[in-house]
Amino acid sequence: MVNAVGRELPELIEGYGAVVPFAGAFATRPRLRRHGARTRILRPGEGKRRASLEDVFRRIPVTDGMTLSFHHHLRDGDGVVNAVLATAAALGLRDLTLAISSVFAVHAPLVEHIESGVVGGLDSDYIAGPVADAISRGVLVRPVILRTHGGRAGAIECGRLEIDVAFIAAPAADDYGNLNGVAGPSACGSLGYAFPDASCAEHVVAVTDHLVPYPLSPISIPQTRVDHVVDIESLGRRAGIASGTTRMTEDPVRLEIARTAATVIEAAGLIADGFSYQTGAGGTALAVTKFVRQMMEERGVVGSFALGGITAQLVEMLEAGLFRSLLDVQGFDLAAVASLAANSSHQEIGAGFYASPFSSGCAVDRLDCVILGATEVDVDFNVNVVTGSHGRIMGGSGGHSDAAAGARLAIVVANPPRGERSVVVDRVLTATTPGETVDVVVTEDGVAVNPRRWDLAGSLAAAGVAVRDIAELRSATIAAQAPEACARVVAVVEYRDGTVIDLVRQVR
Amino acid sequence: MVNAVGRELPELIEGYGAVVPFAGAFATRPRLRRHGARTRILRPGEGKRRASLEDVFRRIPVTDGMTLSFHHHLRDGDGVVNAVLATAAALGLRDLTLAISSVFAVHAPLVEHIESGVVGGLDSDYIAGPVADAISRGVLVRPVILRTHGGRAGAIECGRLEIDVAFIAAPAADDYGNLNGVAGPSACGSLGYAFPDASCAEHVVAVTDHLVPYPLSPISIPQTRVDHVVDIESLGRRAGIASGTTRMTEDPVRLEIARTAATVIEAAGLIADGFSYQTGAGGTALAVTKFVRQMMEERGVVGSFALGGITAQLVEMLEAGLFRSLLDVQGFDLAAVASLAANSSHQEIGAGFYASPFSSGCAVDRLDCVILGATEVDVDFNVNVVTGSHGRIMGGSGGHSDAAAGARLAIVVANPPRGERSVVVDRVLTATTPGETVDVVVTEDGVAVNPRRWDLAGSLAAAGVAVRDIAELRSATIAAQAPEACARVVAVVEYRDGTVIDLVRQVR
Repeated sequence: MVNAVGRELPELIEGYGAVVPFAGAFATRPRLRRHGARTRILRPGEGKRRASLEDVFRRIPVTDGMTLSFHHHLRDGDGVVNAVLATAAALGLRDLTLAISSVFAVHAPLVEHIESGVVGGLDSDYIAGPVADAISRGVLVRPVILRTHGGRAGAIECGRLEIDVAFIAAPAADDYGNLNGVAGPSACGSLGYAFPDASCAEHVVAVTDHLVPYPLSPISIPQTRVDHVVDIESLGRRAGIASGTTRMTEDPVRLEIARTAATVIEAAGLIADGFSYQTGAGGTALAVTKFVRQMMEERGVVGSFALGGITAQLVEMLEAGLFRSLLDVQGFDLAAVASLAANSSHQEIGAGFYASPFSSGCAVDRLDCVILGATEVDVDFNVNVVTGSHGRIMGGSGGHSDAAAGARLAIVVANPPRGERSVVVDRVLTATTPGETVDVVVTEDGVAVNPRRWDLAGSLAAAGVAVRDIAELRSATIAAQAPEACARVVAVVEYRDGTVIDLVRQVR
Repeated sequence: MVNAVGRELPELIEGYGAVVPFAGAFATRPRLRRHGARTRILRPGEGKRRASLEDVFRRIPVTDGMTLSFHHHLRDGDGVVNAVLATAAALGLRDLTLAISSVFAVHAPLVEHIESGVVGGLDSDYIAGPVADAISRGVLVRPVILRTHGGRAGAIECGRLEIDVAFIAAPAADDYGNLNGVAGPSACGSLGYAFPDASCAEHVVAVTDHLVPYPLSPISIPQTRVDHVVDIESLGRRAGIASGTTRMTEDPVRLEIARTAATVIEAAGLIADGFSYQTGAGGTALAVTKFVRQMMEERGVVGSFALGGITAQLVEMLEAGLFRSLLDVQGFDLAAVASLAANSSHQEIGAGFYASPFSSGCAVDRLDCVILGATEVDVDFNVNVVTGSHGRIMGGSGGHSDAAAGARLAIVVANPPRGERSVVVDRVLTATTPGETVDVVVTEDGVAVNPRRWDLAGSLAAAGVAVRDIAELRSATIAAQAPEACARVVAVVEYRDGTVIDLVRQVR
């Protein structure tokens, strides 16, 4: 089989199952129902506080082969995944699958749990650090499933990813399982990526280091879906939680890329009342936002909303009246946490609301513009954000493919190459986001517009932006070399609709 | 069959189905899963605004025999039910079932729609006014199902009551279906009773008279579950929405009942930090709250939460620091609406969170005390709030049975009889709330304690409250007479767990 981005795929992958090939960003429209989790019946007075994680494991009981889920709002400060897996290992459990929205360097102990057989499967939207390296080396027998943030939400909410036990790291909780992320010493802001897990898991466990009297206020995740509450000493290393965003770039080349990206947005006619916007927290992205803000201020524009990972920069724009609302699925810094707690126009949303394709309408579909990064972009505008230059896993889509699919204008800002390869290549090693959903690529060498967006090319030319053919942006001197790889599949990259867009193979 | 409150029941009721008899307040524990509604897939740019209700009916399409649902937060000012039914009638639809959380006098046109065959079934928690009279006279072929507020939420959330189309009267909405009840000319406060409908219906329609730019803020019901948005001129008659609560009683007998009820709460040791409380908005209930407030202030007590229908009186107590939080499933006045919009400790909750027995824990289960009314109480402490003295339907449980089951102390304040019958009778005509969940009855003639609560009787005696046997509170001079009734069942009264606690028969 060959899918819609030209990837050859087997019909069946051992440890994964039957492959449904990617057929186009909006081509696959399965008929689904929302997943209905098992309900419980409590008596008045029946409590939920448990003595320890071990106590929770025994009560459920957690058994070999179960799927445990986690969210990643504590980022590289998270201590909950490691604590839960240590409990699983101590109890002698085998072959667990982890469904975890993102994996960071802090999760390095997971490698040992894989090697020892405690963990036998991994399902995630983003994997970095030692775990990513180990997976690329082939430590897991079954291939990892790499989803998008919206795809994960949809898969959980529609029963394609069934969770036995959801562990929710809760910066604040009461004894009856009402949870939020805005209070306590481990405050991380939004708990949006945990919403699908809480809604659909068979068992839901809240792990907190800040237990408050009933009822908690505000309530992000309600008692009606939480079965167990465990109070532990600390959710993690605070410096890694809400650790502040990347600093805005000061590199002149990157600043010029950012300025050009902002000019593209303006030329597209989007800097107008109601403007909606998403970007990440990288140095170039922050610079784009700075230029966009200047344009909005100059024109007196009031935007509708900013979306996605929320930073101090966006909070300031809300407070300055440049956006009417922030829709927050994840906060990146303490300013975002404080704003979510204090400002009713700063709204917490779940991952399904953010980006699931299987709902009556997600927020990315209302985006005017998203600024995205890339490891590689190819001449068909396909983007790779999964593998690095040696073919090793070093990230994942996160919300990349979701926002690209939803936004009216998806701009990839491709930073200057740091190493031996060009950012623009003939063919990306791992297709993550399909080219049909990418409108513009901005590199140090120029601006390329997707031929599907001939309308946009005209607007840019009229605004004085020099548009080049994307093939011209390939670095002539540095030939891209595909890394040597084994035949064995270590990760299946699913598009947000659950189809397979590409495979990642073991590196030597 | 005879159920646990001594009611003889047939095994099967035509138009209802097999009868599961009430077996005790916590005896029936079905294994259930949450209902998974059908999901939709929208393309970016695909809109939801529709030209008219008729347009919505044709798009869905609404067909004969479907179940349409409604919530009752617009109370006796609601214009949405009548507008939707007029559309159904104009389109020639037949045999619709209405699942409507409460029916008021304003819904009188429903009688005609029943008579003409447009509506063939009714499922509600409370029915008053001309519709109640018509049902008692036998206008419907199929018996009405009378649920509790928590039972309705549980039935919807667990798929026992399947809704084809939920119509949500939305005082504020954006064009993508984000909804709230706190803004706009028809602001009613919480939309909590509509949460299960929005979550579980196959199709969800928002009807609004206040369309705002995307995204609405705050969002109570999210775009992910709303399929159609219709903008109409007015949701209803404003004087009937948030119309202000009943005034506090000035009748000395009722004031004395209220003072006694407050003394019972105090004697039970509940006026202490963390105190949680629910009451209705009747004149006697408001007086109880006044006395409770005085006791809390005298002792410097900080309560945890007040629950249920929220009034200006409870808002004042929140603002005075006497409660840490309000949990609001329905607001009764403009003060409640304004507070919900402005105060983050005043939290909107859904009907399932409020009272569903089929969840991981509802709010009524955390109540220390609830003050309840009654049409009749019998010597087994069973309460009737469904039928009046002539056997006619004149209300329903609403949250009565739910709060009684959950609260540690459920006090029935039985107002002095206005007519020919005593409040305390040998056997209530229609058992609504089982006696096992009622702890204390306070009437003008004295205080009776349920024999199950011998502990409480001791505390009351120690506090100087004269406790009498409930049989002594029957009015000796006025014998209760069962009204003449036909054999035909016009309503099946379900307990919150879905078992049948009693039947209402046609009156002559």
